[in-house]
Amino acid sequence: MKKIELAKSREFSPIAIKNVVLHDSPYFKIINFNIGAGQLFPVHSHDIEGQLSILVIEGEGDFLGEDTAIPAKTSDMLVADISEPHGVKARTDMRIIVTIAPPI
Amino acid sequence: MKKIELAKSREFSPIAIKNVVLHDSPYFKIINFNIGAGQLFPVHSHDIEGQLSILVIEGEGDFLGEDTAIPAKTSDMLVADISEPHGVKARTDMRIIVTIAPPI
Repeated sequence: MKKIELAKSREFSPIAIKNVVLHDSPYFKIINFNIGAGQLFPVHSHDIEGQLSILVIEGEGDFLGEDTAIPAKTSDMLVADISEPHGVKARTDMRIIVTIAPPI
Repeated sequence: MKKIELAKSREFSPIAIKNVVLHDSPYFKIINFNIGAGQLFPVHSHDIEGQLSILVIEGEGDFLGEDTAIPAKTSDMLVADISEPHGVKARTDMRIIVTIAPPI
């Protein structure tokens, strides 16, 4: 059993999205992405089985699909197939926790 | 793709822990537990393969193991094997998001 303090991985960069792998196992992978205000996590997908969740723990922006933008604020979550196009656009500095099962 | 607003499942009861299944698929199960101040999510385990994460999105208390109590506040996460004894004790009203992969 392992405790992870997300407060310790709170770091933004004006250059690029910061990402920190919090956990990786055969069961799931958990990543913290810190997306600066205005930054884009581009829409992408992988042609494999599985799903992911994206939980906003700070800030706001939009969850992106192929042709959609869904408003996303702190405590909103998106669940999608890994094979479905998904992305995030940050309006403010925004922290998300992404859980991928099974891990990519 | 599905958006889930955790603000909508924020409900505490003086009688018992409130739990809301947010998502259930062959890949993972995601549950929101709202644990009132002083309430105990008892230490338990299941003798099966897999892991779980517990993310505190509001409040504070302790992550519990068989003989351990680890302070847990908003934005702290615990990762454990499903077969490892785990529980939570709430000091304040406390909301946690539990992700179980593969789902029980």
